[in-house]
Amino acid sequence: MVQAKSWILVKHFDGFPKEGDFELKVGELPEPKDGEVLLEAVFLSVDPYMRPFSRVRMKEGDVMIGTQVAKVIQSKNPAFPVGTHVVARSGWRTHAISDGADLIPVMPDWPQDISLSLALGAIGMPGLTALYGIEEVLGLQKGETLLVNAAAGAVGSVVGQIAKIKGCKVVGSAGSDAKVAYLKGLGFDEAFNYKKVTSLEEALRKASPDGYDCLFENVGGYFSTVALQQMKSFGRIAVCGSISTYNDASPQTGPYPHLTIIFKQLKMEGFMQSRWEHKHPESLKRLMAWLKEGKLKYSEHITNGFEKMPAAFMGMLQGENIGKAVIAV
Amino acid sequence: MVQAKSWILVKHFDGFPKEGDFELKVGELPEPKDGEVLLEAVFLSVDPYMRPFSRVRMKEGDVMIGTQVAKVIQSKNPAFPVGTHVVARSGWRTHAISDGADLIPVMPDWPQDISLSLALGAIGMPGLTALYGIEEVLGLQKGETLLVNAAAGAVGSVVGQIAKIKGCKVVGSAGSDAKVAYLKGLGFDEAFNYKKVTSLEEALRKASPDGYDCLFENVGGYFSTVALQQMKSFGRIAVCGSISTYNDASPQTGPYPHLTIIFKQLKMEGFMQSRWEHKHPESLKRLMAWLKEGKLKYSEHITNGFEKMPAAFMGMLQGENIGKAVIAV
Repeated sequence: MVQAKSWILVKHFDGFPKEGDFELKVGELPEPKDGEVLLEAVFLSVDPYMRPFSRVRMKEGDVMIGTQVAKVIQSKNPAFPVGTHVVARSGWRTHAISDGADLIPVMPDWPQDISLSLALGAIGMPGLTALYGIEEVLGLQKGETLLVNAAAGAVGSVVGQIAKIKGCKVVGSAGSDAKVAYLKGLGFDEAFNYKKVTSLEEALRKASPDGYDCLFENVGGYFSTVALQQMKSFGRIAVCGSISTYNDASPQTGPYPHLTIIFKQLKMEGFMQSRWEHKHPESLKRLMAWLKEGKLKYSEHITNGFEKMPAAFMGMLQGENIGKAVIAV
Repeated sequence: MVQAKSWILVKHFDGFPKEGDFELKVGELPEPKDGEVLLEAVFLSVDPYMRPFSRVRMKEGDVMIGTQVAKVIQSKNPAFPVGTHVVARSGWRTHAISDGADLIPVMPDWPQDISLSLALGAIGMPGLTALYGIEEVLGLQKGETLLVNAAAGAVGSVVGQIAKIKGCKVVGSAGSDAKVAYLKGLGFDEAFNYKKVTSLEEALRKASPDGYDCLFENVGGYFSTVALQQMKSFGRIAVCGSISTYNDASPQTGPYPHLTIIFKQLKMEGFMQSRWEHKHPESLKRLMAWLKEGKLKYSEHITNGFEKMPAAFMGMLQGENIGKAVIAV
């Protein structure tokens, strides 16, 4: 028997999440049965998608959804011996029982000197999201100019670096001077602090006077309206996130985009990385190879302590992280 | 010398166009020089696109842009002998001099019993727009369900019929009971008068409880917001027009669409038929073949008299036409 903690969504978020929307539950887990394993969380992920998904995938009283890197600490499943590290969709829990069906072993040959937490970041879901957005959705070509917003986030920072690997000009928008400095260090051609510019339109125009072939959209809302006007004809937009609208108590509105979409013959596509799940193993290898070659750098914002998960989640939604927000147990 | 009339945009439209925004100009044209022809308009087209294009392609004092079927009445260009009918981008003019470069002869073998005005409608730009939207943008597949709005218009009515030819379920929205009856006569599976439904959402859900694979968007604005919610996962949207917003003095706003686009992984693409100009001759033949086989029916709303062009244009923007709005000189 093991003492297991979990974070419950006790009340659907109304506007920005509050401490009181979460409740820490402590209980005991039984021994795993035949075919099952007992998992212990090592690193847990907080990601923007959890905010909108809470409405559509969860009901009040459910454990918060989410992914973690976990270690098998008891096993009655020969496919997952004790000591194996897996990526598990167990939600916000310190411990869980699994029959193994939803477990993905961490990549074989994971280098000793690279933290397993990256399986939740650059070598995990956010990295895959960046890669598929660029290759499958945008079809980004050498020499093109790409704009990415929330550029210092877990996804955006990988987006910009992959675009550089592909020989593109990359412009990034982020919400602090420290983030802008980080982006320049990653090799972004242009980066600006959207909170400090007097005109977003001017900032975008100055960073790329000829406009943008591609937009990797993580922000939505007002930013999307302004960026649309700066797209080139036949521009493509990969709609990955809309973080500026996730915490709306009532929906923000903006001018309808259709006329611009017609005049510029733009293409916009929403996507989730799960669409290309069959490519994940190969894609993770490619990301890891770039990492080892030094072409893909990363930053993590690590919060210590399972108890601090709600605070880490809310901090991430407010943009306090550079790179991936991770909780270490 | 010939007396030529033209309609001038004397003042950029502010909100809905007014009579006073146009001015009829009468002048004389010289004889055509070597290589030139003198054209006389037979049918002129008024189309929704003229409203938004007036802002971006015209300045005050310009002749209104537009296409016409014209007859060559004097010729010093052997490629266009007297009596030839052409489609010309001469704008709102009764007569024009052309060097032939921008003239497209009406399809050879045009049947005697089919009005040449159709070269401005089902066998012209609107028909091509419908065809390319369905084939090149949506990639509509047999068995899918398509929604089209402004369905009784020049483009929409062809869209629905091509979708039926392709073995799809077709739902159309239009703005009068007479239009709805017309759509049912064309073979639309479902059609409704959006001005009379108590809830657009319910009307869309009732017409196709499983949602829509494809939307052919002619309307934009509020309709687009409601329709987005009724799309199936991986739905595609061809953005062809946005007539509900063309006459805005200040832009209408609506909720940002990004979250829905992500959750449903929707694809939206704006387009203009000119992108596939190289396919026009072949495409016009296909449209004509469907017309001869009785699979493609058409309706025209004909206004007699060049003097009435502004009134016909404004009437079309208000939806008084069923099918293509055409002016006969």
